[in-house]
Amino acid sequence: MSATKVSARVTYWAGRGKCEPLRCLLAIGGAAVDNIFLTSAAEMRALIEAKKLAYDQVPLVEMDGLNLAQALPTAQYIAQRLGLLPTDPKLAYEAASIYASAQDARAPMVSFPFHGDRERTAAELAGKKALLGRYAPKWEAMLGKSGGPYLLGAEPSLADAGVWECLDFQRHIYGTDAFAAAFGAQPRLLAHYEACLDLGSLRAWRDEERPRLFFDDWGEYAATVRATLEF
Amino acid sequence: MSATKVSARVTYWAGRGKCEPLRCLLAIGGAAVDNIFLTSAAEMRALIEAKKLAYDQVPLVEMDGLNLAQALPTAQYIAQRLGLLPTDPKLAYEAASIYASAQDARAPMVSFPFHGDRERTAAELAGKKALLGRYAPKWEAMLGKSGGPYLLGAEPSLADAGVWECLDFQRHIYGTDAFAAAFGAQPRLLAHYEACLDLGSLRAWRDEERPRLFFDDWGEYAATVRATLEF
Repeated sequence: MSATKVSARVTYWAGRGKCEPLRCLLAIGGAAVDNIFLTSAAEMRALIEAKKLAYDQVPLVEMDGLNLAQALPTAQYIAQRLGLLPTDPKLAYEAASIYASAQDARAPMVSFPFHGDRERTAAELAGKKALLGRYAPKWEAMLGKSGGPYLLGAEPSLADAGVWECLDFQRHIYGTDAFAAAFGAQPRLLAHYEACLDLGSLRAWRDEERPRLFFDDWGEYAATVRATLEF
Repeated sequence: MSATKVSARVTYWAGRGKCEPLRCLLAIGGAAVDNIFLTSAAEMRALIEAKKLAYDQVPLVEMDGLNLAQALPTAQYIAQRLGLLPTDPKLAYEAASIYASAQDARAPMVSFPFHGDRERTAAELAGKKALLGRYAPKWEAMLGKSGGPYLLGAEPSLADAGVWECLDFQRHIYGTDAFAAAFGAQPRLLAHYEACLDLGSLRAWRDEERPRLFFDDWGEYAATVRATLEF
């Protein structure tokens, strides 16, 4: 971890979407984060006109004078800045690869607020090429191989932020009992979920700040996203 | 560029899909590439059973004893190895971000062989959030700002491989006249396309090797992909 507190300004809607993995990464790394939540098309237009969005898309992370706006490269930049990206290129590949796999695995949950059908999303997550059928067993095996507590071994990295957030998304939609049941065959992954909560300010983000800041209702989040993009 | 010739073995189907940006990057960097083309479900099964695919997906790039199998981290690893990734973290972010944007921009063309409808893909590419409506004008502006000939300025990088391949995909589907017309409002981008052809073995890959190795017919490629994944 870097000695001085790194600060970042994050602009997105008040929900998970494509931003939450970045927020969890910033929390794990102990950064000071200022969250800006979009609520109107005028705000989105203003960001575009200010030329802060390289491709007219959010999430936007402002850090070190940069406007970071491409999800995976943004995550790697943040991780490097917070001491969560190995300097060895092979290990850096491994960390980024695991993080990227978690983005693939969470895709059905990103769509969930826009249709609101819990059963449909559960079926998608259970598919043989999806979170429960493919990714969770792979990550469980990696934790077995690394010896834990983290995916690359003794030190936390970008990889842990991605996998943690993906599991947390499932827990957020389905609740703690369904969460424990869904990952019952992956005890190392469940232990990893708990271990990560002690990193940086992640536990406070999950249990205190996020519930205060996010929409309580998934549909309300989806409606706000739709309204903001209508121009 | 590194002094000793870097070698890589690339496994995918004999077409563009999610692999061609990596092949173009390897060609630009002058790597020695051994292309393996999948033709049957048995070959795919064998790769999975050999545990070479971290998430049971291709493209697979074998390099330095690693099995690289997540597209964007793979591109960054290759670029770093071939001297095409800036060492400064801000410039590295910029290069990776531009490369990633090209992957977003090319998505409709990745789907093209599976439906074969040129008009449909042309309409998708012309959309205001797509290649011609969003990305090409952004890249044109970047080339203006960098002063060229490359996206980050005087030195080629990962960014150039991504953008070059995206334009080349459009040229491959629609031919040279439609290509020149589609990017007529982006003269810097067209000049960039030509300039990149002098890097490494890219011109030989485009004009000699690739036409010899790939399926001539897009539908034949799609049928082979489908047959290989049926198990």
